[in-house]
Amino acid sequence: MRIPVDRDGPTPIWRQVAAALRTEILSGALPPGARLPSTRRLAADLSVSRILVENAYAELAADGLVEGRPGSGTFVAGAAPGRPVSTAPVDEVSFRGVGDPDLYPVKAMTNTIRDVVRRDGSAVLGYGAEVSGHPPLRATIAQMLASQGIHVDPRDVLITSGSQQGLALVFFALLRRGDPVVVERPTYDGALELLANLGAEVIGVDVDRDGMRVDQLADIVSRHRPRLIYTVPTFQNPTGASLAGDRRRRLLEIAESVDAVVVEDDFVGDLHYDGPTQPALRSLASPGRVVYLGTFSKLLMPSVRVGYLVADREPMERFVSMKRSLDLSTSLLMQVALDRYLAVGRYQAHLARCARLYRPRRDALVAAVRRDLGWDVSPPTGGLFLWARLPSGLGSGALADAAEKRGTGLAAGAPFFPDGVGGERFARLNFVVNGPERMREGVRRLQLAVEDLHGPAQR
Amino acid sequence: MRIPVDRDGPTPIWRQVAAALRTEILSGALPPGARLPSTRRLAADLSVSRILVENAYAELAADGLVEGRPGSGTFVAGAAPGRPVSTAPVDEVSFRGVGDPDLYPVKAMTNTIRDVVRRDGSAVLGYGAEVSGHPPLRATIAQMLASQGIHVDPRDVLITSGSQQGLALVFFALLRRGDPVVVERPTYDGALELLANLGAEVIGVDVDRDGMRVDQLADIVSRHRPRLIYTVPTFQNPTGASLAGDRRRRLLEIAESVDAVVVEDDFVGDLHYDGPTQPALRSLASPGRVVYLGTFSKLLMPSVRVGYLVADREPMERFVSMKRSLDLSTSLLMQVALDRYLAVGRYQAHLARCARLYRPRRDALVAAVRRDLGWDVSPPTGGLFLWARLPSGLGSGALADAAEKRGTGLAAGAPFFPDGVGGERFARLNFVVNGPERMREGVRRLQLAVEDLHGPAQR
Repeated sequence: MRIPVDRDGPTPIWRQVAAALRTEILSGALPPGARLPSTRRLAADLSVSRILVENAYAELAADGLVEGRPGSGTFVAGAAPGRPVSTAPVDEVSFRGVGDPDLYPVKAMTNTIRDVVRRDGSAVLGYGAEVSGHPPLRATIAQMLASQGIHVDPRDVLITSGSQQGLALVFFALLRRGDPVVVERPTYDGALELLANLGAEVIGVDVDRDGMRVDQLADIVSRHRPRLIYTVPTFQNPTGASLAGDRRRRLLEIAESVDAVVVEDDFVGDLHYDGPTQPALRSLASPGRVVYLGTFSKLLMPSVRVGYLVADREPMERFVSMKRSLDLSTSLLMQVALDRYLAVGRYQAHLARCARLYRPRRDALVAAVRRDLGWDVSPPTGGLFLWARLPSGLGSGALADAAEKRGTGLAAGAPFFPDGVGGERFARLNFVVNGPERMREGVRRLQLAVEDLHGPAQR
Repeated sequence: MRIPVDRDGPTPIWRQVAAALRTEILSGALPPGARLPSTRRLAADLSVSRILVENAYAELAADGLVEGRPGSGTFVAGAAPGRPVSTAPVDEVSFRGVGDPDLYPVKAMTNTIRDVVRRDGSAVLGYGAEVSGHPPLRATIAQMLASQGIHVDPRDVLITSGSQQGLALVFFALLRRGDPVVVERPTYDGALELLANLGAEVIGVDVDRDGMRVDQLADIVSRHRPRLIYTVPTFQNPTGASLAGDRRRRLLEIAESVDAVVVEDDFVGDLHYDGPTQPALRSLASPGRVVYLGTFSKLLMPSVRVGYLVADREPMERFVSMKRSLDLSTSLLMQVALDRYLAVGRYQAHLARCARLYRPRRDALVAAVRRDLGWDVSPPTGGLFLWARLPSGLGSGALADAAEKRGTGLAAGAPFFPDGVGGERFARLNFVVNGPERMREGVRRLQLAVEDLHGPAQR
């Protein structure tokens, strides 16, 4: 406890101590039920006689601010407040979020964490030997990627604290303020916020049902000479579109022609519902062209906070230094537990289960949105998101506010567009997060929200 | 599984599939024991007939590269490698690191994690409702700080993924490439690496036994007009020095005079051995002047990856946006578990136990370093580190290399100095990380390392 004490001033020390504590208590910083340090310890901390601290506590007790409990110490008067975990109200049905929390493999991961701590003890509670991440996990991820046709050396894998950190690492390491960056329009809002924080110049390329309009790209790169091209080629966020095979090859050629690095954000590329997925850009590209980002947060559980990036030797050194600068290391405990979970094939089984359950949810939401809301949607072949074009006159910002009042939620379109332009006509709905009944209830509330804005005639 | 398949080329598809898998296996990316996807799944993934995949697997089996195990699938031939957690060799005695891993409250934290998952289930496995962190943890931290004389509103607390992320948040949010920043010389090497990654102009102010030489500061700030002054005022890293009370006030006055923000890194301010600790700068400063950084990684366990920063309303908005950009959120599970652990007073008890055990370790290492190595050290009154001035002719870079060969380790001085200048004469030793016997063994090995460099006469 550090209370500034003026030893030479006119106010007695015990009054200074009492005044400092009184301020804390009245402001709520020391809430009811909080325990004060023992008089012995506080006296030692402040290098004052214990009797002075006892005087201070006695004054506070006389004011009714603290109470002594025999045998256990001195406490701020009143009951201790409860500390529930704050979550969304039980009855909110949101179309935001990532995976369905009811499918998180809670028990398996908790048991794995417990087993790892039992087996390895404090060895897994430190920082870990390598900033790049736990070597066995990197090997397991390399193996998992190999089974997806992406050939990587485990040394080219860097463990990140979620794929958002992967993005931050790459952008901060490779970009300077004012550098031009090409992105899809619309694209992941978190990438746009990061680029804004960095002060990069953001240039959008339109997206259609086959992904980025690569036909616009050649002209744009020759004019702007971007250092980076950021793309979510598979089950894009927010549109759900997948970049067609010929466009993938053309994108890489164009990047090659101006020596731009392609940042491939494959956040849910392994969650597909209708037949094969296009090969990753990383598997088609020549060495050094593509930095690949993956994550376990979306489908396993966000609290794991483990993602990864794949890059070649040269930029990797800069990424490792930036990783150390951003957070020293990703939790070793989580890395070891995740490696255990992955290595026995549980993640593949979990993915397969998610895909089985999520596919009919997609179909149901697509049907309901068309039938009950009359919105225009193209069903994506994988991933999490449905991108809806709203009827004319219905703005997504106002809709999101109205939806919140009705106990539901969706993502308004504007944050997915550079400068927000063009987003008002669109909204993003997560189709995996709710089971059938909650989904129906959510759509009903969206109907009500639309009526709140336009009256029942709108339907 | 995504294998690029050319449907129109001259090579049969099954040969393309076999060739892709062969490459993965021979390179080790698919290691011995790895399970291949079922022929059914791979055929579906690639949209090819199942018989083609069976042909590919049969060819690999004929080559001895894979083997079928009846009832369980197809595996890469050979035994699966073990996956031990890689840690330092058992017999290495290092003077690096943070807290003593043997004191990490492993069992208490693991039990707390288990209890939290049992009680709250998937509610603690998502991202959490607020980017700033779990509100009850922020309230608990505010209360903990209040008991140290630092008065904060819980809304002014932002949870970070360790205090390194706090530094990154503040520096990235407030600095641009080329901006001048004042730091202590020497200072925390991780801050210097971060500032180098950012491209800031770093200006050093010398440190003596009473901390930063504030008498040099007025002149420096009037010449350079820094945006930030970064300081570790209490039990400084690496010197262990604590900024004297009058210097604390003077530092704040000077910062005030040029409107520079003071970043106070209080990474072990609550671990003191000899009497009271100076009040935190944050508790002495006028509003808006000081951003305060704290952490639980050092003394609880690094794998928790939870730290915090305290700042005022105005910069906080930018920090929250930057936090979202850097990693979306800190693991909610770890935040809830830590809150539980803190709220029942266990952290205070743990701190007290650490201080009791670490104090004699400091005394023992100070005595041994003086007696057996003849190095010049000033015992710090708290914290983790001893800063040693080496005898002339003994360079710390060469010493660190020689120590490593002898199975011990220390931190060479150069990385703690801007541009590395002046660090060769110094080395940093962690005095808390080893118990008495290991400490003696470590010092013996350092003696041997010195002899390796200079011969026995050096002693």
